[in-house]
Amino acid sequence: MGTIDFWCELASPYTYLSVCRIEALATEAHVSLRWRPFSLHPIFKAVGWQTSPFEIYADKGRYMWRDMEREADRLGIPFRRPTVFPRNSVPASKIALLGVERGWGALFIRKVMQAHFEGDRDIASPAVLESVLDELGLDGATVRQEAVATAQSSALRRSTEEAIRLRIFGAPTFMVGEEMFWGNDRLENALDWATRPSNAKYDP
Amino acid sequence: MGTIDFWCELASPYTYLSVCRIEALATEAHVSLRWRPFSLHPIFKAVGWQTSPFEIYADKGRYMWRDMEREADRLGIPFRRPTVFPRNSVPASKIALLGVERGWGALFIRKVMQAHFEGDRDIASPAVLESVLDELGLDGATVRQEAVATAQSSALRRSTEEAIRLRIFGAPTFMVGEEMFWGNDRLENALDWATRPSNAKYDP
Repeated sequence: MGTIDFWCELASPYTYLSVCRIEALATEAHVSLRWRPFSLHPIFKAVGWQTSPFEIYADKGRYMWRDMEREADRLGIPFRRPTVFPRNSVPASKIALLGVERGWGALFIRKVMQAHFEGDRDIASPAVLESVLDELGLDGATVRQEAVATAQSSALRRSTEEAIRLRIFGAPTFMVGEEMFWGNDRLENALDWATRPSNAKYDP
Repeated sequence: MGTIDFWCELASPYTYLSVCRIEALATEAHVSLRWRPFSLHPIFKAVGWQTSPFEIYADKGRYMWRDMEREADRLGIPFRRPTVFPRNSVPASKIALLGVERGWGALFIRKVMQAHFEGDRDIASPAVLESVLDELGLDGATVRQEAVATAQSSALRRSTEEAIRLRIFGAPTFMVGEEMFWGNDRLENALDWATRPSNAKYDP
Protein backbone atom coordinates (compact mmCIF):
# COMPACT_ATOMS: atom_id res chain seq x y z
CA MET A 1 0.00 0.00 0.00
CA GLY A 2 1.38 3.38 -1.06
CA THR A 3 1.46 6.62 0.84
CA ILE A 4 1.05 10.22 -0.23
CA ASP A 5 2.41 13.15 1.74
CA PHE A 6 -0.21 15.81 1.09
CA TRP A 7 1.34 19.26 1.52
CA CYS A 8 -1.49 21.73 2.04
CA GLU A 9 -1.44 25.52 2.24
CA LEU A 10 -4.77 26.50 3.80
CA ALA A 11 -4.97 29.79 1.90
CA SER A 12 -4.54 28.10 -1.50
CA PRO A 13 -7.60 27.84 -3.79
CA TYR A 14 -6.43 24.75 -5.68
CA THR A 15 -5.50 23.06 -2.39
CA TYR A 16 -9.17 23.44 -1.45
CA LEU A 17 -10.21 21.40 -4.51
CA SER A 18 -7.80 18.62 -3.52
CA VAL A 19 -8.84 18.70 0.13
CA CYS A 20 -12.43 18.09 -0.97
CA ARG A 21 -11.44 15.16 -3.19
CA ILE A 22 -8.44 13.38 -1.75
CA GLU A 23 -9.95 11.28 1.03
CA ALA A 24 -12.48 9.44 -1.13
CA LEU A 25 -9.96 8.91 -3.94
CA ALA A 26 -7.22 7.69 -1.59
CA THR A 27 -9.57 5.28 0.16
CA GLU A 28 -10.69 3.87 -3.19
CA ALA A 29 -7.06 3.47 -4.32
CA HIS A 30 -5.93 2.00 -0.97
CA VAL A 31 -3.42 4.80 -0.55
CA SER A 32 -2.70 6.20 2.90
CA LEU A 33 -2.37 9.92 3.50
CA ARG A 34 -0.06 11.97 5.63
CA TRP A 35 -1.47 15.47 6.00
CA ARG A 36 1.31 18.07 5.95
CA PRO A 37 0.03 21.59 6.57
CA PHE A 38 2.71 24.19 5.81
CA SER A 39 3.03 27.84 4.89
CA LEU A 40 3.86 29.05 1.40
CA HIS A 41 4.55 32.57 2.65
CA PRO A 42 8.28 32.09 3.46
CA ILE A 43 8.71 30.14 0.20
CA PHE A 44 7.16 32.96 -1.81
CA LYS A 45 9.22 35.55 0.10
CA ALA A 46 12.41 33.69 -0.79
CA VAL A 47 11.71 34.24 -4.50
CA GLY A 48 10.81 37.87 -3.92
CA TRP A 49 7.03 37.66 -3.66
CA GLN A 50 5.47 39.54 -0.74
CA THR A 51 2.01 38.15 -1.54
CA SER A 52 0.38 35.48 -3.70
CA PRO A 53 1.63 35.29 -7.30
CA PHE A 54 -2.06 35.46 -8.27
CA GLU A 55 -2.03 39.01 -6.88
CA ILE A 56 1.33 39.95 -8.37
CA TYR A 57 0.53 38.64 -11.86
CA ALA A 58 -2.91 40.09 -12.47
CA ASP A 59 -3.77 38.28 -15.72
CA LYS A 60 -2.84 34.94 -14.17
CA GLY A 61 -4.87 35.75 -11.08
CA ARG A 62 -7.90 36.76 -13.13
CA TYR A 63 -7.63 33.49 -15.04
CA MET A 64 -7.21 31.46 -11.85
CA TRP A 65 -10.51 32.63 -10.38
CA ARG A 66 -12.35 31.79 -13.58
CA ASP A 67 -10.62 28.41 -13.75
CA MET A 68 -11.50 27.76 -10.10
CA GLU A 69 -15.18 28.44 -10.85
CA ARG A 70 -15.14 26.07 -13.81
CA GLU A 71 -13.16 23.34 -12.04
CA ALA A 72 -15.28 23.48 -8.88
CA ASP A 73 -18.39 23.24 -11.07
CA ARG A 74 -16.96 20.32 -13.04
CA LEU A 75 -15.94 18.49 -9.85
CA GLY A 76 -19.19 19.22 -8.01
CA ILE A 77 -17.49 21.22 -5.26
CA PRO A 78 -19.26 24.24 -3.73
CA PHE A 79 -17.13 27.33 -4.25
CA ARG A 80 -17.46 31.07 -3.75
CA ARG A 81 -14.59 33.42 -4.55
CA PRO A 82 -13.39 34.91 -1.24
CA THR A 83 -13.84 38.67 -0.97
CA VAL A 84 -10.34 38.91 0.56
CA PHE A 85 -7.33 37.17 -0.96
CA PRO A 86 -4.94 35.87 0.14
CA ARG A 87 -6.08 35.40 3.71
CA ASN A 88 -3.55 34.77 6.50
CA SER A 89 -3.49 31.00 7.00
CA VAL A 90 -0.89 30.88 9.78
CA PRO A 91 -3.16 30.46 12.83
CA ALA A 92 -5.31 27.87 11.01
CA SER A 93 -2.20 25.95 9.94
CA LYS A 94 -0.93 25.84 13.53
CA ILE A 95 -4.23 24.37 14.65
CA ALA A 96 -4.16 21.92 11.73
CA LEU A 97 -0.73 20.65 12.79
CA LEU A 98 -1.97 20.07 16.33
CA GLY A 99 -4.97 18.28 14.84
CA VAL A 100 -2.77 16.01 12.73
CA GLU A 101 -1.00 14.92 15.96
CA ARG A 102 -4.33 14.26 17.65
CA GLY A 103 -6.25 12.61 14.83
CA TRP A 104 -8.67 15.38 13.81
CA GLY A 105 -6.33 17.20 11.40
CA ALA A 106 -7.93 16.11 8.12
CA LEU A 107 -11.42 16.97 9.31
CA PHE A 108 -10.32 20.37 10.63
CA ILE A 109 -8.53 21.21 7.39
CA ARG A 110 -11.59 20.35 5.32
CA LYS A 111 -13.92 22.33 7.57
CA VAL A 112 -11.69 25.39 7.75
CA MET A 113 -11.13 25.41 3.99
CA GLN A 114 -14.86 25.10 3.41
CA ALA A 115 -15.37 28.06 5.77
CA HIS A 116 -12.86 29.97 3.62
CA PHE A 117 -13.72 28.96 0.04
CA GLU A 118 -17.40 28.18 0.40
CA GLY A 119 -18.39 30.48 3.27
CA ASP A 120 -16.00 33.42 2.65
CA ARG A 121 -15.08 33.41 6.35
CA ASP A 122 -11.86 35.00 7.61
CA ILE A 123 -9.77 32.00 8.68
CA ALA A 124 -7.37 34.23 10.60
CA SER A 125 -10.17 35.24 12.98
CA PRO A 126 -10.05 33.53 16.42
CA ALA A 127 -13.87 33.42 16.49
CA VAL A 128 -14.06 31.61 13.14
CA LEU A 129 -11.33 29.13 14.09
CA GLU A 130 -12.93 28.42 17.46
CA SER A 131 -16.33 27.88 15.90
CA VAL A 132 -14.86 25.36 13.44
CA LEU A 133 -13.18 23.55 16.35
CA ASP A 134 -16.42 23.64 18.36
CA GLU A 135 -18.21 22.01 15.42
CA LEU A 136 -15.72 19.16 15.67
CA GLY A 137 -16.84 18.63 19.28
CA LEU A 138 -13.64 20.15 20.69
CA ASP A 139 -13.24 23.02 23.13
CA GLY A 140 -12.41 25.63 20.50
CA ALA A 141 -10.98 28.33 22.74
CA THR A 142 -8.68 25.95 24.61
CA VAL A 143 -7.44 24.15 21.50
CA ARG A 144 -6.79 27.37 19.60
CA GLN A 145 -4.75 28.82 22.46
CA GLU A 146 -2.82 25.60 22.78
CA ALA A 147 -2.00 25.62 19.06
CA VAL A 148 -0.62 29.14 19.03
CA ALA A 149 1.39 28.69 22.25
CA THR A 150 5.12 29.00 21.61
CA ALA A 151 6.24 25.36 21.82
CA GLN A 152 3.50 24.00 19.58
CA SER A 153 3.68 27.01 17.32
CA SER A 154 7.18 26.09 16.11
CA ALA A 155 5.69 22.99 14.44
CA LEU A 156 4.60 25.17 11.51
CA ARG A 157 8.11 26.53 11.10
CA ARG A 158 9.54 22.99 11.13
CA SER A 159 6.96 21.79 8.62
CA THR A 160 7.68 24.69 6.29
CA GLU A 161 11.44 24.07 6.61
CA GLU A 162 10.87 20.50 5.51
CA ALA A 163 8.83 21.73 2.54
CA ILE A 164 11.74 24.01 1.58
CA ARG A 165 14.17 21.09 1.89
CA LEU A 166 11.94 19.10 -0.47
CA ARG A 167 12.02 22.07 -2.90
CA ILE A 168 8.27 22.52 -2.72
CA PHE A 169 7.31 25.74 -4.52
CA GLY A 170 3.50 25.68 -4.59
CA ALA A 171 0.38 23.99 -3.31
CA PRO A 172 -1.14 21.52 -3.28
CA THR A 173 1.93 19.30 -3.56
CA PHE A 174 1.76 15.52 -3.36
CA MET A 175 4.96 13.63 -2.54
CA VAL A 176 5.16 9.91 -3.26
CA GLY A 177 8.58 9.12 -1.85
CA GLU A 178 10.90 11.48 -3.72
CA GLU A 179 8.44 11.97 -6.57
CA MET A 180 6.74 15.38 -6.60
CA PHE A 181 3.32 16.14 -8.07
CA TRP A 182 2.12 19.73 -8.04
CA GLY A 183 -1.42 21.00 -8.37
CA ASN A 184 -4.93 19.65 -8.05
CA ASP A 185 -4.59 18.49 -11.67
CA ARG A 186 -1.94 15.99 -10.57
CA LEU A 187 -3.84 14.33 -7.72
CA GLU A 188 -4.88 11.36 -9.87
CA ASN A 189 -1.32 11.01 -11.18
CA ALA A 190 0.06 10.95 -7.63
CA LEU A 191 -2.43 8.24 -6.69
CA ASP A 192 -1.44 6.20 -9.75
CA TRP A 193 2.21 6.60 -8.83
CA ALA A 194 1.56 5.51 -5.24
CA THR A 195 -0.15 2.33 -6.39
CA ARG A 196 2.13 1.24 -9.21
CA PRO A 197 3.92 -2.04 -8.52
CA SER A 198 7.40 -1.34 -7.17
CA ASN A 199 8.94 -3.28 -10.07
CA ALA A 200 7.32 -0.91 -12.57
CA LYS A 201 9.69 1.95 -11.77
CA TYR A 202 9.73 4.81 -14.24
CA ASP A 203 12.70 4.47 -16.54
CA PRO A 204 12.82 7.08 -19.30
CA MET B 1 -19.31 23.02 -34.69
CA GLY B 2 -17.07 24.81 -32.22
CA THR B 3 -13.74 26.45 -32.81
CA ILE B 4 -10.61 26.69 -30.68
CA ASP B 5 -8.01 29.40 -31.14
CA PHE B 6 -4.82 27.57 -30.25
CA TRP B 7 -2.19 30.05 -29.08
CA CYS B 8 1.21 28.38 -29.38
CA GLU B 9 4.63 29.54 -28.24
CA LEU B 10 7.11 27.37 -30.13
CA ALA B 11 9.69 27.41 -27.31
CA SER B 12 7.19 26.17 -24.72
CA PRO B 13 7.52 22.56 -23.48
CA TYR B 14 3.86 22.09 -22.55
CA THR B 15 2.81 23.60 -25.88
CA TYR B 16 4.73 20.75 -27.50
CA LEU B 17 2.55 18.20 -25.70
CA SER B 18 -0.60 19.93 -26.95
CA VAL B 19 0.75 20.29 -30.49
CA CYS B 20 1.26 16.50 -30.58
CA ARG B 21 -2.29 15.83 -29.36
CA ILE B 22 -4.64 18.52 -30.54
CA GLU B 23 -5.28 17.56 -34.16
CA ALA B 24 -6.53 14.03 -33.45
CA LEU B 25 -8.62 15.18 -30.48
CA ALA B 26 -10.15 18.13 -32.35
CA THR B 27 -11.02 15.94 -35.35
CA GLU B 28 -12.67 13.39 -33.09
CA ALA B 29 -14.65 16.14 -31.31
CA HIS B 30 -15.58 17.90 -34.59
CA VAL B 31 -13.91 21.09 -33.37
CA SER B 32 -12.08 23.30 -35.84
CA LEU B 33 -8.73 24.83 -35.00
CA ARG B 34 -7.21 28.21 -35.67
CA TRP B 35 -3.46 28.05 -35.13
CA ARG B 36 -2.18 31.24 -33.50
CA PRO B 37 1.61 31.27 -33.16
CA PHE B 38 2.77 34.11 -30.92
CA SER B 39 5.70 35.09 -28.74
CA LEU B 40 5.62 34.97 -24.96
CA HIS B 41 8.83 36.98 -24.70
CA PRO B 42 7.21 40.48 -24.70
CA ILE B 43 4.52 39.21 -22.33
CA PHE B 44 7.13 37.90 -19.90
CA LYS B 45 9.16 41.12 -20.22
CA ALA B 46 6.09 43.16 -19.29
CA VAL B 47 5.93 41.38 -15.91
CA GLY B 48 9.66 41.79 -15.38
CA TRP B 49 10.94 38.43 -16.62
CA GLN B 50 13.91 38.55 -19.01
CA THR B 51 13.75 34.80 -19.59
CA SER B 52 11.43 31.86 -18.97
CA PRO B 53 9.92 31.66 -15.47
CA PHE B 54 11.21 28.08 -15.43
CA GLU B 55 14.71 29.56 -15.45
CA ILE B 56 13.95 32.33 -12.95
CA TYR B 57 12.22 30.04 -10.44
CA ALA B 58 14.65 27.13 -10.21
CA ASP B 59 12.55 24.75 -8.11
CA LYS B 60 9.60 25.19 -10.43
CA GLY B 61 11.85 24.66 -13.45
CA ARG B 62 13.37 21.50 -12.01
CA TYR B 63 9.87 20.19 -11.34
CA MET B 64 8.65 21.12 -14.82
CA TRP B 65 11.30 18.99 -16.56
CA ARG B 66 10.43 16.00 -14.41
CA ASP B 67 6.72 16.56 -14.99
CA MET B 68 7.36 16.84 -18.75
CA GLU B 69 9.14 13.47 -18.73
CA ARG B 70 6.29 11.84 -16.85
CA GLU B 71 3.54 13.47 -18.93
CA ALA B 72 5.23 12.70 -22.26
CA ASP B 73 5.63 9.10 -21.10
CA ARG B 74 2.00 8.89 -19.98
CA LEU B 75 0.75 10.41 -23.26
CA GLY B 76 3.06 8.33 -25.46
CA ILE B 77 4.90 11.37 -26.85
CA PRO B 78 8.62 11.13 -27.61
CA PHE B 79 10.48 13.72 -25.56
CA ARG B 80 14.07 14.64 -24.80
CA ARG B 81 14.92 17.57 -22.56
CA PRO B 82 16.62 20.20 -24.73
CA THR B 83 20.23 20.94 -23.80
CA VAL B 84 19.51 24.67 -24.23
CA PHE B 85 16.45 26.36 -22.74
CA PRO B 86 14.69 28.53 -23.60
CA ARG B 87 15.55 28.61 -27.28
CA ASN B 88 14.73 31.65 -29.40
CA SER B 89 11.45 30.85 -31.13
CA VAL B 90 11.06 34.12 -33.05
CA PRO B 91 12.27 33.02 -36.52
CA ALA B 92 10.30 29.74 -36.30
CA SER B 93 7.17 31.63 -35.24
CA LYS B 94 7.47 33.99 -38.21
CA ILE B 95 7.65 31.01 -40.55
CA ALA B 96 4.72 29.39 -38.74
CA LEU B 97 2.56 32.48 -39.31
CA LEU B 98 3.36 32.44 -43.01
CA GLY B 99 2.51 28.73 -43.00
CA VAL B 100 -0.86 29.36 -41.36
CA GLU B 101 -1.70 31.77 -44.21
CA ARG B 102 -0.65 29.19 -46.78
CA GLY B 103 -2.10 26.03 -45.28
CA TRP B 104 1.02 24.29 -43.99
CA GLY B 105 1.22 26.03 -40.60
CA ALA B 106 0.03 23.17 -38.40
CA LEU B 107 2.38 20.69 -40.04
CA PHE B 108 5.34 23.06 -39.79
CA ILE B 109 4.64 23.78 -36.12
CA ARG B 110 4.49 20.09 -35.30
CA LYS B 111 7.69 19.33 -37.22
CA VAL B 112 9.65 22.22 -35.77
CA MET B 113 8.53 21.42 -32.22
CA GLN B 114 9.50 17.80 -32.71
CA ALA B 115 12.91 18.97 -33.93
CA HIS B 116 13.18 21.00 -30.73
CA PHE B 117 11.73 18.72 -28.04
CA GLU B 118 12.47 15.33 -29.53
CA GLY B 119 15.59 16.06 -31.56
CA ASP B 120 17.21 18.80 -29.42
CA ARG B 121 17.74 20.93 -32.55
CA ASP B 122 18.29 24.69 -32.36
CA ILE B 123 15.08 26.09 -33.84
CA ALA B 124 16.67 29.53 -34.24
CA SER B 125 19.18 28.12 -36.72
CA PRO B 126 18.41 28.93 -40.40
CA ALA B 127 19.77 25.50 -41.44
CA VAL B 128 17.40 23.68 -39.07
CA LEU B 129 14.42 25.77 -40.13
CA GLU B 130 15.17 25.32 -43.81
CA SER B 131 15.57 21.56 -43.44
CA VAL B 132 12.17 21.34 -41.71
CA LEU B 133 10.64 23.36 -44.57
CA ASP B 134 12.40 21.18 -47.14
CA GLU B 135 10.89 18.09 -45.48
CA LEU B 136 7.47 19.64 -46.10
CA GLY B 137 8.29 19.74 -49.81
CA LEU B 138 8.82 23.51 -49.78
CA ASP B 139 11.82 25.52 -50.90
CA GLY B 140 13.23 26.06 -47.40
CA ALA B 141 15.66 28.87 -48.17
CA THR B 142 13.12 30.92 -50.11
CA VAL B 143 10.31 30.46 -47.63
CA ARG B 144 12.48 31.27 -44.64
CA GLN B 145 13.74 34.48 -46.21
CA GLU B 146 10.21 35.44 -47.14
CA ALA B 147 9.01 34.89 -43.57
CA VAL B 148 11.66 37.09 -41.99
CA ALA B 149 11.31 39.89 -44.57
CA THR B 150 10.05 43.10 -42.99
CA ALA B 151 6.42 43.18 -44.15
CA GLN B 152 5.67 39.56 -43.26
CA SER B 153 7.77 39.78 -40.13
CA SER B 154 5.34 42.23 -38.50
CA ALA B 155 2.70 39.46 -38.43
CA LEU B 156 4.35 38.08 -35.28
CA ARG B 157 4.16 41.45 -33.57
CA ARG B 158 0.48 41.76 -34.49
CA SER B 159 -0.26 38.24 -33.26
CA THR B 160 1.49 38.90 -29.96
CA GLU B 161 -0.36 42.19 -29.56
CA GLU B 162 -3.63 40.34 -29.95
CA ALA B 163 -2.50 37.81 -27.31
CA ILE B 164 -1.78 40.71 -24.94
CA ARG B 165 -5.20 42.20 -25.65
CA LEU B 166 -6.75 38.82 -24.75
CA ARG B 167 -4.70 38.87 -21.49
CA ILE B 168 -2.87 35.68 -22.41
CA PHE B 169 -0.04 35.10 -19.90
CA GLY B 170 1.29 31.63 -20.80
CA ALA B 171 1.23 28.81 -23.31
CA PRO B 172 -0.41 26.79 -24.56
CA THR B 173 -3.61 28.83 -24.32
CA PHE B 174 -6.88 27.71 -25.85
CA MET B 175 -9.57 30.33 -26.46
CA VAL B 176 -13.15 29.24 -27.05
CA GLY B 177 -14.77 32.56 -27.79
CA GLU B 178 -13.99 34.66 -24.71
CA GLU B 179 -13.31 31.60 -22.54
CA MET B 180 -9.64 31.00 -21.75
CA PHE B 181 -8.05 27.63 -21.00
CA TRP B 182 -4.37 27.57 -20.07
CA GLY B 183 -2.02 24.63 -20.18
CA ASN B 184 -1.86 21.22 -21.81
CA ASP B 185 -3.90 19.95 -18.84
CA ARG B 186 -6.86 22.02 -20.06
CA LEU B 187 -6.93 20.84 -23.68
CA GLU B 188 -9.74 18.35 -23.03
CA ASN B 189 -11.69 20.99 -21.08
CA ALA B 190 -11.39 23.43 -23.97
CA LEU B 191 -12.67 20.78 -26.39
CA ASP B 192 -15.60 20.05 -24.07
CA TRP B 193 -16.37 23.74 -23.89
CA ALA B 194 -16.24 24.11 -27.66
CA THR B 195 -18.75 21.30 -28.14
CA ARG B 196 -21.26 22.07 -25.39
CA PRO B 197 -24.69 23.01 -26.69
CA SER B 198 -25.03 26.78 -26.81
CA ASN B 199 -28.02 26.61 -24.47
CA ALA B 200 -25.88 24.96 -21.77
CA LYS B 201 -24.04 28.16 -20.91
CA TYR B 202 -22.07 28.15 -17.70
CA ASP B 203 -24.01 29.92 -14.99
CA PRO B 204 -22.32 29.86 -11.57
